[in-house]
Amino acid sequence: MIPTITAFERSPDRGKGLARDMRVRWALEEAGQPYEVRLVSFSAMKEPAHRALHPFGQIPTYEEGNLALFESGAIVLHIAEHHAGLLPDEANARARAIAWMFAAVNTVEPPILELQTAKLLEGDKPWTEQRLPLVLDRIRHRLGELSVRLGDADWLDGAFSVGDLMMIGVLLRLRASGLLDEYPNLAAYVARGEARPAYKRAFASQWAVFAGSRLPT
Amino acid sequence: MIPTITAFERSPDRGKGLARDMRVRWALEEAGQPYEVRLVSFSAMKEPAHRALHPFGQIPTYEEGNLALFESGAIVLHIAEHHAGLLPDEANARARAIAWMFAAVNTVEPPILELQTAKLLEGDKPWTEQRLPLVLDRIRHRLGELSVRLGDADWLDGAFSVGDLMMIGVLLRLRASGLLDEYPNLAAYVARGEARPAYKRAFASQWAVFAGSRLPT
Repeated sequence: MIPTITAFERSPDRGKGLARDMRVRWALEEAGQPYEVRLVSFSAMKEPAHRALHPFGQIPTYEEGNLALFESGAIVLHIAEHHAGLLPDEANARARAIAWMFAAVNTVEPPILELQTAKLLEGDKPWTEQRLPLVLDRIRHRLGELSVRLGDADWLDGAFSVGDLMMIGVLLRLRASGLLDEYPNLAAYVARGEARPAYKRAFASQWAVFAGSRLPT
Repeated sequence: MIPTITAFERSPDRGKGLARDMRVRWALEEAGQPYEVRLVSFSAMKEPAHRALHPFGQIPTYEEGNLALFESGAIVLHIAEHHAGLLPDEANARARAIAWMFAAVNTVEPPILELQTAKLLEGDKPWTEQRLPLVLDRIRHRLGELSVRLGDADWLDGAFSVGDLMMIGVLLRLRASGLLDEYPNLAAYVARGEARPAYKRAFASQWAVFAGSRLPT
């Protein structure tokens, strides 16, 4: 059965691939799993029909037969559990790959979300100029630790896994800030992710949505 | 094999059970799995020996034979996958329980972490008094959505699962703020979690560490 995911009707990042549907698209492409996309407007996201799928009124969601899921991490893990190539076969390596997924969303992403909040929701506040350096330093703290752990390895723990997919999906959100460039091995790590054919296909699909939304109607 | 977890040698919350080892202790108690605890000082957490276990120099970690894990979400999921009672048997219900785990750590916890950061790391800044109401409102936004979804159910999706365990673990961090009391069904939900015998055993264990650390040496 071909799953259906949801994505923004009009991408707030103008097709840069930073919305969380990108992580799910990437996982589906790595898995070689065809999928359909239902685009959702900002107003429809907050209506009961969509909230039945996603209690927090966001994207992405994932529907496959009787299963409805939300949360990009959970969807990506579900895909990885049902297709080869995204989780190691060996039990301990599998558990460690899942640990990196949680590290991506619960340790590395929160300070990055704080930066987004500072810019998008508090950009006009009198304190933001003074406060931003503190927020950036908290991100640097995490990036420094991640950079040390990655060292000169290609991926976080052996072969590419969903742990890398989620971590790179999170780190990509930093590109515009320039912070990634302060950690050359992390910048190269992200670039390795972007160079994967599955990533490129996923990126092209979400870009097509954005390009289409710009067409005169 | 009895696993070993790590916890703070001196609990920064003075035994209130808000550190992330509590989630792991609770899961182990629900699973009926004995465990050992190795206490780690703040300085030892940042040293190479501990960073080999936890790249971000935090607690908890989990060691079991050749397996070493970090990230409370990953550890709790690992425990749930290897013991009965924390994940539904039915495949779709299992995937939804995992979705709630990710919702806890990636959707509900980030604004709560922002509040902690505002108080602990920016408490002395001139903007904090003016800024705190914005941070609190962002938490309220998420709590309101969660409250609507929970409704008058006991747990988030059928029987108690690791999804509830992680969500309650996250919500508990709000107790001191009084925000939970604005959502009576969420306050009752958290109280139901705390009333579970496994929670009580886990709480007592971490409390004993704090009480012991107060003894004159």
